[in-house]
Amino acid sequence: MIGLITDFKLKDSYVAEMKAVMYCIHKQGVVIDITHDIPFGDIEAAAFLLERCWKSFPAETVFCGVIDPGVGTSRKAIMGKSKGMYFVGPDNGLFSYLFPPQQVKLIPDHLSRKTPGNTFQGRDLFAVAAANLDKQQDNFLNSQGISYSGQLVKLNTAPVPKVMWIDNFGNAILSMKPEHLFTNAPKFCLNWGNYSFSEIYPNYQALAPHQVGLVTGGSGYLELAARDKCAAEILKINRGDILDVRN
Amino acid sequence: MIGLITDFKLKDSYVAEMKAVMYCIHKQGVVIDITHDIPFGDIEAAAFLLERCWKSFPAETVFCGVIDPGVGTSRKAIMGKSKGMYFVGPDNGLFSYLFPPQQVKLIPDHLSRKTPGNTFQGRDLFAVAAANLDKQQDNFLNSQGISYSGQLVKLNTAPVPKVMWIDNFGNAILSMKPEHLFTNAPKFCLNWGNYSFSEIYPNYQALAPHQVGLVTGGSGYLELAARDKCAAEILKINRGDILDVRN
Amino acid sequence: MIGLITDFKLKDSYVAEMKAVMYCIHKQGVVIDITHDIPFGDIEAAAFLLERCWKSFPAETVFCGVIDPGVGTSRKAIMGKSKGMYFVGPDNGLFSYLFPPQQVKLIPDHLSRKTPGNTFQGRDLFAVAAANLDKQQDNFLNSQGISYSGQLVKLNTAPVPKVMWIDNFGNAILSMKPEHLFTNAPKFCLNWGNYSFSEIYPNYQALAPHQVGLVTGGSGYLELAARDKCAAEILKINRGDILDVRN
Repeated sequence: MIGLITDFKLKDSYVAEMKAVMYCIHKQGVVIDITHDIPFGDIEAAAFLLERCWKSFPAETVFCGVIDPGVGTSRKAIMGKSKGMYFVGPDNGLFSYLFPPQQVKLIPDHLSRKTPGNTFQGRDLFAVAAANLDKQQDNFLNSQGISYSGQLVKLNTAPVPKVMWIDNFGNAILSMKPEHLFTNAPKFCLNWGNYSFSEIYPNYQALAPHQVGLVTGGSGYLELAARDKCAAEILKINRGDILDVRN
Repeated sequence: MIGLITDFKLKDSYVAEMKAVMYCIHKQGVVIDITHDIPFGDIEAAAFLLERCWKSFPAETVFCGVIDPGVGTSRKAIMGKSKGMYFVGPDNGLFSYLFPPQQVKLIPDHLSRKTPGNTFQGRDLFAVAAANLDKQQDNFLNSQGISYSGQLVKLNTAPVPKVMWIDNFGNAILSMKPEHLFTNAPKFCLNWGNYSFSEIYPNYQALAPHQVGLVTGGSGYLELAARDKCAAEILKINRGDILDVRN
Repeated sequence: MIGLITDFKLKDSYVAEMKAVMYCIHKQGVVIDITHDIPFGDIEAAAFLLERCWKSFPAETVFCGVIDPGVGTSRKAIMGKSKGMYFVGPDNGLFSYLFPPQQVKLIPDHLSRKTPGNTFQGRDLFAVAAANLDKQQDNFLNSQGISYSGQLVKLNTAPVPKVMWIDNFGNAILSMKPEHLFTNAPKFCLNWGNYSFSEIYPNYQALAPHQVGLVTGGSGYLELAARDKCAAEILKINRGDILDVRN
């Protein structure tokens, strides 16, 4: 199985071209669209969504990510294995949450199609590599002559309550899990403007109607949520904002 | 086959997580996205779209619906069989048009994944149940120890000309089929503002250019349509509006 | 494999109904969504996207297109073979770039479902024909009693630099390939307002930051692109606009 995440949106034929190329290589392959609606070039958001969803996929899924503001620059094109999953994409931090990897290699030259200008590496390089990995598993990783990249960008995964994603329901998902709050003290308080959050509710229904509160989301991360309302709008909070935390 | 309908939109990874979980359970399964663009919590609209499209699917399709404003509240989680099709989702009226059902049961506890807070029942409960139903057919329905819900909400299916859906072309689809208009009298007149409709056109091309008229749509329901124009905009009519009818 | 392109968008269940019907006919079939976001009735744009992407698909793919402003009028419903690919759709120019075809035929009557009004030919005619072609290959094309259409509209494919598509990144894709520019002279200049373009860059990274320039895109066509910016917005250029060209 291939899990595909891009910032291509669905208006153009770009995603379809990637899938068609994958199918040419691996006819029995299954592709699941994670999302194609990542804000343009937003590597951090995509990395976070990958961290959120990878555990729902079967072992040996190939995660193919094309959020690649530096397409064609000197950033490396990598493939690798980590936590029983494969990944293929640009070496720009996209897979940071899947690390530490067991294996990371540069995508070998024979896993790409030559086209004029090489402007569409999603189709001509990453899709080809992902489909081959999905079909042949780690034959490519085990092959000789491929050097490790060693250039992996790690995202800041320190437990600061940063808004990593705002979902379509308006829930603001934080870069913190409940266990992070209690490492130093039994009490905590997250603050944003005039709002204070010092309690974690087990689910949305535990909130009073229209109350904004801290909930453990489906990913295990904390979310600022409002029952039947858009929490991000009420709080005027955006992706990247960081809350104050006091233990 | 699984037909999937939600109000999740496609920006987040939520739909992908449901599909990944389904695939883990039933590797040979096929999922068709009905739509993920139901207005948030709009059970009535989703029920109508299910009624519209279910006949196009093969027998024994599992319709999995997650339009669930009361996620985690006391509303029941159900699975069942009706008209040769299966359905899985919250007990909130979503499958009302598929009734009367032959079998409706509560989803048994062993058909769910335990996660913190249980905030994502679409993935952890409904996707799991739908994939198992798709794989094993009605083994689960036939199994012992599952009580009938008996709490099924029925939508108003009386033949009043209510706008049940406005499609992307601006056609306003009514909750009425042509045969409903002629039950009491050979003549009828539907009225909306200054517009009167007393004739049913067989298809869009039978309308004059830019004329707004009553057409029998692809679903068998009546539609207010305009040739090459957005009828809903011309009529200033919205979902939920009800026309006057005179026989 | 079926490659599906429509102007239906994804809000309604229309695309799902087409796929469900296809699956009923050909259970092993795979459908790839090219896009459903073609502007309403924009045959020229869809034809261009088909030209752009068809080479990425495997041989014998069936391209099913429903961009059909004249649904149900006298325009013919056709199926055919060209360049090793099949195509199914309205006879309105949608497949013009795939020509000259080896075979084009009217879709035979037995390849359709009868419904009231026949308002949804995408589902009831084109999906049925496409799935049968995908399953049985050219049995239908070889069968007797089907007359050639002979009414194929060709798009203007003369090498004028017309904006055929603006992608989601804001790249304005022209109806010209690099080789078209040098047919008469070794030098050229494309002009749009105060902008002049007389050099072709091999890829996006060859542009200076924020520079708008002419790039050979992933399709082999020329694009007006800006690095990390929306070129179409900077240039105030729209689909259908034609640049001045001087050799």
